[in-house]
Formats: sequence, C-alpha cells, structure tokens
Amino acid sequence: MRATLIYGAGDVRVGEVPDPVIQQPTDALVRVVRACICGSDLWPYGSKPAGAQGDRIGHEFLGVIEDVGSEISAFKTGDLVLAPFVWSDGTCDFCGEGLQTSCRHGGTWGRDGIDGGQGEAVRVPQAQGTLVKLPVGEDSALLPGLLTLSDVFCTGHHCAVTAGVNARTTVTVIGDGAVGLSAVLAAKRLGAERIILMGRHKARTDLGLEFGATDVVAERGGEGVAKVRELTGGDGTHTVLECVGLEQALETSFGVVRAGGTISRVGAPQYAKVPFGFPDFLRNITLTGGVAPARAYIKELLPDVLEGRIDPGRVFDHTVDLDGVPDGYRAMADREALKVLITP
Amino acid sequence: MRATLIYGAGDVRVGEVPDPVIQQPTDALVRVVRACICGSDLWPYGSKPAGAQGDRIGHEFLGVIEDVGSEISAFKTGDLVLAPFVWSDGTCDFCGEGLQTSCRHGGTWGRDGIDGGQGEAVRVPQAQGTLVKLPVGEDSALLPGLLTLSDVFCTGHHCAVTAGVNARTTVTVIGDGAVGLSAVLAAKRLGAERIILMGRHKARTDLGLEFGATDVVAERGGEGVAKVRELTGGDGTHTVLECVGLEQALETSFGVVRAGGTISRVGAPQYAKVPFGFPDFLRNITLTGGVAPARAYIKELLPDVLEGRIDPGRVFDHTVDLDGVPDGYRAMADREALKVLITP
Repeated sequence: MRATLIYGAGDVRVGEVPDPVIQQPTDALVRVVRACICGSDLWPYGSKPAGAQGDRIGHEFLGVIEDVGSEISAFKTGDLVLAPFVWSDGTCDFCGEGLQTSCRHGGTWGRDGIDGGQGEAVRVPQAQGTLVKLPVGEDSALLPGLLTLSDVFCTGHHCAVTAGVNARTTVTVIGDGAVGLSAVLAAKRLGAERIILMGRHKARTDLGLEFGATDVVAERGGEGVAKVRELTGGDGTHTVLECVGLEQALETSFGVVRAGGTISRVGAPQYAKVPFGFPDFLRNITLTGGVAPARAYIKELLPDVLEGRIDPGRVFDHTVDLDGVPDGYRAMADREALKVLITP
Repeated sequence: MRATLIYGAGDVRVGEVPDPVIQQPTDALVRVVRACICGSDLWPYGSKPAGAQGDRIGHEFLGVIEDVGSEISAFKTGDLVLAPFVWSDGTCDFCGEGLQTSCRHGGTWGRDGIDGGQGEAVRVPQAQGTLVKLPVGEDSALLPGLLTLSDVFCTGHHCAVTAGVNARTTVTVIGDGAVGLSAVLAAKRLGAERIILMGRHKARTDLGLEFGATDVVAERGGEGVAKVRELTGGDGTHTVLECVGLEQALETSFGVVRAGGTISRVGAPQYAKVPFGFPDFLRNITLTGGVAPARAYIKELLPDVLEGRIDPGRVFDHTVDLDGVPDGYRAMADREALKVLITP
C-alpha cells in the first residue's frame, strides 16, 4: 500500500510500504477514508535531520474497519471509526481518569513500528480502547468535522476545559492557527461571552469571529498585552488559551491573564523554562493544559458535530489526495493553508 | 508605643514608634494580644540591606479593638479580632471572588506607612473588610491556633485547596517548616488518606505524623524523588504541596507528581523561571498556588479550631515577649524554633 513518509526537514514523500496485518488480538486494520496534516507535523517538517529511511507520519484519521483481532468485540468489518491522536487501552487507571495520553499500554502513531495516519491503511493497536464508532457513512458531509475530533478540536476543547472556561469567564485565545480557532469555538461552546482572539492573519481571525470571538487583537508582544488590557479595564482575562507553543506566546499569556486566572497551554512547548516567578505567584496565576486526551472528549463532542450545532471542520481550507500530501505540507508551512484535509 | 523594627539583615530591634491613630473613617486601632514570626520574615532578616531607619515588620496578629473609624459598623471597642496577612476592603470584585490578596484597595502590613504586626498596636486600614471577630476572650487557650488563621494555616490550606486535595488524591508535602506542617494538617482535614511528608528535621516530621502524614521521606533531590516514586508504585502522587519556595523544592515537585497531577506552591518563589517544558506538558501537569487569600478561608476554618477538631497552633514551639523578638528571629533563622509566638 502507499503511505506518507518523512525523510527529513522539507522532505515528505508518498511511497510504498508493507500492507498492515493484524499482529495482536487487540489490533484492528483500518482503511483510511480521511486524514489530515497537523501543525505539530510541521515541527519535524521544519527540523528533522535527513535520513535514508523515511518514517511514517500522521496521527489524525478516520476510516473503515477491514479486519479485527480476536479480542475486539466492539467493532466489525465495515464500521466507520475515528482514531484519536494517541492510542490507548481504555482499561488502565489513567484511561479511567480520562487521561488516555498517559495510558499504561498506549502510544503514539508513526513511532516504534506503529503506522502513521497519512496513508491508505493503519494497523490500530489497542483498537477496543482507542477507536470510536461513527454513526455515519463514509460519504457523509460531516467527515471533516468528525475528523477534527481526532485532535485539533479536542485539543482546543482540552485547552478551554482545563482553563476552566464557562459563562462567567473572559477568555483570551493566543494564536489563529487551527488549534487557536478550535479553542475559540470550544470556549464559545462552553458558554464564554467575551473571547479575545490574538492573531494577525485576517482570513483566519475572520473565521475566529464566526466561531465566536468577540474581539481580535492583531498586535503582538507588549503592544498586544496592552491592547488586551485596554479591552478588559486593565485587568486581563480570567482565562488564557495558549495555542502556539513559542516562548513569546507564553510571555504574552502571563501579560494578559487576570489575577487569580488560569493559563492553559496546548501548543507543544518549544522552550524548557517558564517565566513564572514571584510577581505571578503574588497574583495566584495557574498554568495548566498539556497534550489533549482527545479520546476522553470524543463521545461528549460527537453529538454536537453530528447534529450540526458546531462545525469545527471549517478549519480545513485545503484538500489533497495522497499524492498531494507533500504539497499540502508545503502549503501549511508557507501559511497558504490553515489546515489540510487528505482523501487517500 | 513599642514595636519591632528591622534595620537590615540580622538586625531586628524593638524600639519606640508613634502611637497609631485613626486616620481614615475605614480604620480601626487594634491592641495586639498575639503576634508571631513568619518564615517569610526570614527573607529580609537574611538579606535586607542595612539602613539607618528601621522598618516595621510582622503581618500576623490578633488583638482587641481600641477604637474604630466612623465607617466601621462591624466591630466595637473591646472586640477580639483576627487580622489576615493582607488587608482588603471586602467589597471589590476580587474580594468577592475570594482573592483578597488582589484587593483593589488592599495592601500589605509594614509597608507604605502601614504598621507591622509585631508591636503593641496596629492601625488597621479597611478594617471592616479585613478583620474577623473572634468569639473568645483574650485569655483563651485557643489563641495560638486562632492566630495561625492569620497566615500559616490558611497558607497550608490554600495550598491543599488549589492543588485539589480530597479523599481520592494522594499527596506529597515538600517542606517540614510551619507551612509544610500546616499543609499536612490541611490535607488531612480535606480527607487525604495518603500524605507523604518530605523533610528531615525529626521533631518537625514527628509533628507532621501527628498532623496526618502517613510517610516521611528524609532524602532530598533525586534520592527523595526516587523514594516517593517507590512509595507510590512508580507513579508519584496526584498532588504536590510545595511549601519551601526554593528551586530545588520545585524541581522535586515535578519529579514526584503523577501524570495529570497538580503542583501547588505557597513558598514564596526564590527563582524567576520554572523548569516546565515539553516532558511535563506531555504529562498534563498543572502548576498552581500563590500567596494565600487567608481572609477567604478564615470563616470556614474557624469552627474547626474553636471546636478543637484541629489544633494548628501546635506549630508554635517557642514564645517570646516583645523584648524577646530579636532572639525569636535568631532562633527561627538558626532552626532552633519552628515558629515563634509573640505575646507583646
């Protein structure tokens, strides 16, 4: 079969790989119907050392079950299923607590011999705990929205949930990428009435306004902080959803958070230390967030997508087939595309 | 009248200061009946540059109302009252949210012309919002316990509350000072069944065991982390109460916290940056805490002290009169005393 392989920075190709087969009784084989490219895929695309061997990549997909191992009872051939971006057994204590990203028998796609999602098919380990059945057909117009539950919308939702967003909290979202826009939509869904979006790509912030942002701040750094404070009577917002991962975005977070407030970060940190000393201790600031346990949220969010109350699939503004994946990476890296949908 | 003055590192004296008088209609005058020395007083005692003028110091006291301004209706001459370690108006939005440490019209004792608590009397600004009436006489044996509600026990409680301690959470308390021991007692009061206390002063950890600690780990750094992990099946604890404020204690916190867990810090940070990058992002760790809004907790904790369900006053192991305050500082700095009670 064919799948996406990354050979190094800027070098993504589509090539032949062995067809997946059931290896464990807990496996399932899934033919991929939709996949996509994640902002976090751009980190290796930007910096991976070149190698002779390509590595599988991609961690967001939905598809049709082609075969199941002997211990799988929840799915059968022909079911349409969604995979969250971390696989997990669904039975350990961490999974029971809704922290499937720390599953005792789980792991990450495209690593340690596990298939990546940007290909024609995937062997899914721990399929019973990992996959979620989708009650639509593979021709459904809802597939893009459903696919966002694999990662990006659940990540925005995790950010808003861990920040404690509700109807009484004001919100700043930092970053107008697909995660930031998802965080806007998630904050709106949780009842937030004041959502300030910090970003400066107009097409993206326009979508943010449609998703529920009430204000857009294009300025960055100290100017951006001053602007958010001006919009909030000098105080900043109760919650800050940091959806970038760069140190400057984190510094901005501390600048715009109100005393007693919470910063949640879901952008993978590209820094080792956080500027969080005595002044913000005096203000009782909380820093939370982390990699989103998407699996924990899918069942709660699914009805809202199925019934059309939210349309998180609008973050996809570019679609490619498998051959188009390398150009999809380029388009996202060049900021031509917000998020790229793949139809293998 | 006489009060404690700090002239520089290691130089605390008791001297004559002007008698306080009502300056604002929102003031009250309080004759101090009990005060004490805080671990945080040891920071200026250890490092303050020498000066010709002594500064008032002390922020924990209870006493008797001697006079009130015209806008004070809640207290009258003769009432025994407790002062939390930050004064606050009780009416602003932050006070309403229980974050009196960020009060819009509040402040700190012993600074900007405001009296310190380690003296014969104190002018209390914003007295109506600040003070809490104590339903006992000034000869009550409960005074030491009640005085801990001014700061140290409320600080331990704030640490446990913001960490989310309850009957289902395992707890590590870092630090066997008065705040650490108060955090043990607070965690026990909130229902924690497993409380690991990290400290190596046996007399103190023994009191910690009486307060509710189930395990004591005397090792520090990597050895201490290994020991806590060994005690918790390799995982660490759900909550970590960091009651020291030094960088090593914070590093230990990240080492002993379980994935998905929360570190709360109430030791004033003696560092500017926190080692909180990608690995702990992957584990969904939360860092919270801060300076405790004691005023928010006093009314909830008061009945437990009055009715003898908890005895947080046991952290006082040394008592001095006003003349003995300089030696009290020395005794605490030399770790001869855990916490020093002052009877002016």
